[in-house]
Amino acid sequence: MNKVYVIAQGGGPTAVINQTVTGAVLATREHDPDARFLGARHGVRGVAGGDYVTLSDLSEADLMRFANTPNSGLGSTRDKPDEDYCQRVLAGLDQAGASSFIYIGGNDTSGTMAILDDAAGDEMHFVHAPKTIDNDLVENDHTPGFMSAALFVANAFLSVDLDFRAMPGVYVGIVMGRHAGFLTAAAAAWRRDESDGPHLIYVPEVPFTEGQLVNDIRGVLDRHGRCIIAMSEGVQTADHRPLAETLIPAHLHERDAHGNLQLSGGDLGQALGLAIKDDLPGVRARVDTFGYLPRGFLGTVSEIDGAESFAVGRFAAEASRQGSGSVAQQYENGETALKLVPLGAVANKTKRMPDDFMRPDGCHLTDTGLAYFRRLLPPRPDTWTPFV
Amino acid sequence: MNKVYVIAQGGGPTAVINQTVTGAVLATREHDPDARFLGARHGVRGVAGGDYVTLSDLSEADLMRFANTPNSGLGSTRDKPDEDYCQRVLAGLDQAGASSFIYIGGNDTSGTMAILDDAAGDEMHFVHAPKTIDNDLVENDHTPGFMSAALFVANAFLSVDLDFRAMPGVYVGIVMGRHAGFLTAAAAAWRRDESDGPHLIYVPEVPFTEGQLVNDIRGVLDRHGRCIIAMSEGVQTADHRPLAETLIPAHLHERDAHGNLQLSGGDLGQALGLAIKDDLPGVRARVDTFGYLPRGFLGTVSEIDGAESFAVGRFAAEASRQGSGSVAQQYENGETALKLVPLGAVANKTKRMPDDFMRPDGCHLTDTGLAYFRRLLPPRPDTWTPFV
Repeated sequence: MNKVYVIAQGGGPTAVINQTVTGAVLATREHDPDARFLGARHGVRGVAGGDYVTLSDLSEADLMRFANTPNSGLGSTRDKPDEDYCQRVLAGLDQAGASSFIYIGGNDTSGTMAILDDAAGDEMHFVHAPKTIDNDLVENDHTPGFMSAALFVANAFLSVDLDFRAMPGVYVGIVMGRHAGFLTAAAAAWRRDESDGPHLIYVPEVPFTEGQLVNDIRGVLDRHGRCIIAMSEGVQTADHRPLAETLIPAHLHERDAHGNLQLSGGDLGQALGLAIKDDLPGVRARVDTFGYLPRGFLGTVSEIDGAESFAVGRFAAEASRQGSGSVAQQYENGETALKLVPLGAVANKTKRMPDDFMRPDGCHLTDTGLAYFRRLLPPRPDTWTPFV
Repeated sequence: MNKVYVIAQGGGPTAVINQTVTGAVLATREHDPDARFLGARHGVRGVAGGDYVTLSDLSEADLMRFANTPNSGLGSTRDKPDEDYCQRVLAGLDQAGASSFIYIGGNDTSGTMAILDDAAGDEMHFVHAPKTIDNDLVENDHTPGFMSAALFVANAFLSVDLDFRAMPGVYVGIVMGRHAGFLTAAAAAWRRDESDGPHLIYVPEVPFTEGQLVNDIRGVLDRHGRCIIAMSEGVQTADHRPLAETLIPAHLHERDAHGNLQLSGGDLGQALGLAIKDDLPGVRARVDTFGYLPRGFLGTVSEIDGAESFAVGRFAAEASRQGSGSVAQQYENGETALKLVPLGAVANKTKRMPDDFMRPDGCHLTDTGLAYFRRLLPPRPDTWTPFV
């Protein structure tokens, strides 16, 4: 009987997540042309429900078009299976006759795979293929999908800095990232010196106070006449309150039936706008929430990210013939090296920015941090420094 | 004595505004190699204050690097000169020995030029060179800078639509545009059929009600399981109240000393997020404010926009040797044609989207509207339609 592989995508999408699917299917086609390769719709939900696309029926040309399309083309899910759900997933894999299940996702996804692997017999192999724009997987130097999102963010801040040189003021760009500040910090990758924006970066790893922000902004305005800020949406105070909660005047708080403050994506932006207007009267200020824009933007897909994500898919398919584990993009001797690490080593853990990435002032990258992001991104575009 | 040209940039920047400067300088160098070409810093402010860069001293290579850098490299201003200010500008031009003043900007800029031209003698020529991402200048088929901003918006909505196919919900992207909806409507340029996002577009030209929005969203969710919305930040109700004001619950209104509601960029986003949460409970919703991102983004500069903006600069410099006027990008026999029209024909007027661009339902482009945006943008990227 022909071998059957199942692949699925979980969590938020990236610009290159379909590269990993195509890499896995084409590697398998080379090794075993008769294998069936099924793509489950909407992650484990499709596995449990037997909802598949037969990817092995597609031509290489179609698979490459799929690879070059951003965002999860098989659909995704945020389902976190409990024991009962896991049994249905295992039954689904069994019914499909699968012996390999590859699940592309972040730390939640690797957690699901660890549970499935524990519950299943040895003849079924579970391989987690990494992807996340948050870049927050342990064991990985960087994660597939991060470079493309970071390329959007770096482009955005270089462009906005040029914009604000022409007409000075304060700009805050709020970037996704609840626990790890990598994507926000990538805003500074193309800075050449202190006069280039972003002048201040705030990440979840560093406790935050409004007083500090206002002082920081005043200092930058004095020195450079404008102030460009990159801020993670997950920034919080030392007592772990979301920044938006501390900034919104109490009489404007809206609480639900349980007394919990209701905060949505744009709230931090609005709160910051109000705070800057109050504390720095007369200063032109603008706050934009980048939100979903960086994560699958067609105009800034990193070629290296695409190639690496494809290679991760190849590696995952090959590894899944031998056993279970999590594919990790490590960095050795100046290049990216793929390893298979135990699922438990990655599952449900969050990597944060190393302490030596941020200066003691909490709002600038160190040379070490800068070198990391520069290594991952293409060179800064050759722009002319404005005459003002 | 050598002829002296002065050029300046006013209002918000575009991705290609420096192309117009370089076009003007290089055209003048061809025609009159000994002419001096001065760039005023921060628009008319630099002219009045005698604050210049000598652009004619730059090499062609440097001028081309400058051209390929987004956002106003000479600095900009929002100053709207009164009679007294105009006299200082005229004195500044006189002191520089200039006989041509080229001012790159939108309708406010052309208004300033009309005043200056009326106040000055015949030997001084004033030429307005168009630019605006709002695309709202009369006499122009489209304006330099619009295509690049529109390319960002089209890319963003195609990417977000793929994102939300993978994990359904409601997405609202808020796009700049106080009076004209062109940039927002460009979101729909790459739609192939009713199932492609954006499913709904709301522009300032069409009066808006919250009830209508909720009904529209419900209908789209029923048909497609997700709903992608492009909305102008300038959307308003039939009685000309900003949408944000009508959506924010009255007890959350913050008013200034004059009783005016304080609204900032992110307010519409936050208000919409709350309204959708209230009216469509349980629906996953996300609102992002694109803000400044589309207008000078390095990753989506349109090549045709760059070439046209350069040509506008050449034409402006040549025209300024003969007399005053506003350069207009018209459309004749299937191509863009440059004309010099009277300053008064453009000054302070706002072009809105033609009535036949929107369907009677007020939230979809007609075929005529669609054809216009398709003509201006490159072909839709060849993406694979997701399996879900």
